[in-house]
Amino acid sequence: MKEIKKHQHGGDVYRYKGCIDFSSNCNPLGTPQSVVEAVKESASRMSDYPDVRCQRLRDALAEYEKVSPSMLFIGNGAAEVIFALCLAVKPQKALIPAPTFAEYEQALSNVDCQVVHAYLKDEEGFRVGNEFIQVIHRERPQIVFLCNPNNPTGVVASADFLRQVLKACEETGALLALDECFNDFIQDRDQYTMKPCLSDHPSLFILKAFTKRYAIPGVRLGYGISANGDLLECMESAVQPWNVSSLAQAAGVAALEEEAYVDAGRRLIWQEQAYLKKELKSLGFRLYDSRANYLLFYSERPLWEDCKNRGILIRDCSNYPGLSKGYYRVAVRTHEENEKLIQVLKNICQ
Amino acid sequence: MKEIKKHQHGGDVYRYKGCIDFSSNCNPLGTPQSVVEAVKESASRMSDYPDVRCQRLRDALAEYEKVSPSMLFIGNGAAEVIFALCLAVKPQKALIPAPTFAEYEQALSNVDCQVVHAYLKDEEGFRVGNEFIQVIHRERPQIVFLCNPNNPTGVVASADFLRQVLKACEETGALLALDECFNDFIQDRDQYTMKPCLSDHPSLFILKAFTKRYAIPGVRLGYGISANGDLLECMESAVQPWNVSSLAQAAGVAALEEEAYVDAGRRLIWQEQAYLKKELKSLGFRLYDSRANYLLFYSERPLWEDCKNRGILIRDCSNYPGLSKGYYRVAVRTHEENEKLIQVLKNICQ
Repeated sequence: MKEIKKHQHGGDVYRYKGCIDFSSNCNPLGTPQSVVEAVKESASRMSDYPDVRCQRLRDALAEYEKVSPSMLFIGNGAAEVIFALCLAVKPQKALIPAPTFAEYEQALSNVDCQVVHAYLKDEEGFRVGNEFIQVIHRERPQIVFLCNPNNPTGVVASADFLRQVLKACEETGALLALDECFNDFIQDRDQYTMKPCLSDHPSLFILKAFTKRYAIPGVRLGYGISANGDLLECMESAVQPWNVSSLAQAAGVAALEEEAYVDAGRRLIWQEQAYLKKELKSLGFRLYDSRANYLLFYSERPLWEDCKNRGILIRDCSNYPGLSKGYYRVAVRTHEENEKLIQVLKNICQ
Repeated sequence: MKEIKKHQHGGDVYRYKGCIDFSSNCNPLGTPQSVVEAVKESASRMSDYPDVRCQRLRDALAEYEKVSPSMLFIGNGAAEVIFALCLAVKPQKALIPAPTFAEYEQALSNVDCQVVHAYLKDEEGFRVGNEFIQVIHRERPQIVFLCNPNNPTGVVASADFLRQVLKACEETGALLALDECFNDFIQDRDQYTMKPCLSDHPSLFILKAFTKRYAIPGVRLGYGISANGDLLECMESAVQPWNVSSLAQAAGVAALEEEAYVDAGRRLIWQEQAYLKKELKSLGFRLYDSRANYLLFYSERPLWEDCKNRGILIRDCSNYPGLSKGYYRVAVRTHEENEKLIQVLKNICQ
């Protein structure tokens, strides 16, 4: 038995009661009321086992994503999808960028996989570039994780570049696990998604979540899309039959109807992202080119504790491989909340 | 990548709408109203991530089980606890009885473990006996699964016998994974649980569920208890940080207050178990000595299809290793429902 220390994540509103949570990154409009109602309604039927096939949700999701229902793996949050993927592939060597979302490495450690980090450089704005493709050819990993836009940087890679990554993966026999959980909130998102490549590329697996899009992290619902039927079948075998609760299935079906709500969330994010960027820059922080609903910045002055003491929870990113002391991530929230964040930062920095 | 076919389980009320579900085994009183209310209340806070430590639930559960909070692993249903256990131990060889609950083998296959079956004999009433202990010494598995009362037979092993099994496990360096999910409903349950052995025996892991006790399979909540802190830490690393939804945590906290409800469920089960045993026997089925809230019986005549056509879903147990065509399991439900079951069986058999 090996010991792995769990990565500390944001969103711990239980230890820091009453704080505004800028440390996790969901739709700033909160959970749609229809989703709350669907869960409440489903609560009356908890004495039934969940549908192991998630049939209603699967059909609705297939329609939403314009793919066949058989191309979907549905999980207890996107995090479970990552774990199931690693259990199905059982790679011996994996390539991930650094910094990036911590759960890829956690899930890979779980299957005793050697993890090669491609360190992204601050001076290059943490962009993933051609070097990444060279590392694929040199290291020949069985799986490559990429997050687009990347978490915690918010930096996006172009679809052109991702097609080159996919080509390199295909040439070396690697699976490309592309996390598009935050694609939903970026401008011109259709230009960045690799979904059109799915049907012709069984080496491509795209990860998506309900969590961020509909602000329902509490209910746990994520999914993966791939044309690789064998892979999906292995993933199903790697998890229990009832991994997705009835409540999550009900939440998902209701959520998929809420496209206008997601649109409104997007518009709010774009507007507020611009506001926060301007303000953070004018406070003298080093800012990176995030297109996502969160912003990474660097501060010489420690901020986490002072923010917390003023009722604001931000994400200290110093524990990400590839980052160090001084990096912070903040979510884009409502204007009123963002103003509060900026005011608090001003107070700390003055 | 390997392929594993998923075991078919009971409880599929989605494919067989309108049937009374005798194929899954929960408290016949249904979900306590307080638990439904707690989930509804929690639905308003789905925009927060779940508490990764499940602190409120953990504390309440520790008090309920009279153990330290650090002795608990909480999972997305007992099935996830089984998967996490196998991922943490990564055994090369495991011993399980046959027939027994299918998820042990599924979770063991997941870590490429060789599974040794100890076949229980119909003519011995599917009792686990001394031979099981001999197999432990002979095969020297790293993990031994036992389910008490066993599923699907309902047959119980005495605590004396289980202490011998534990001793054999300790002598051979195996972990004893003891599934007591159905202990809650048996008479003199305190005499059968191995919980008193936990603190002195780090080789013992006891599996428990909220699912059956409070009839909440839809919400997914199970747990494991062990004094083996290293093991529990490895299990935490083997699953995502947010494996237990906020809704499940809220359901659990409310459920633990419902001891009177569980007591009422027990009394109903004991009474109805006697009724069903008498009736099934008088219908000529071969019945086994179940002490649990479900009964295994053997019928020469095929029953599943005919029952289903009459609105009754029973569990065809022919796909259990160690069983074959003709074995069926039915849950003990309310008197009215049990009467309906008996009436349907009478109609089929006459």
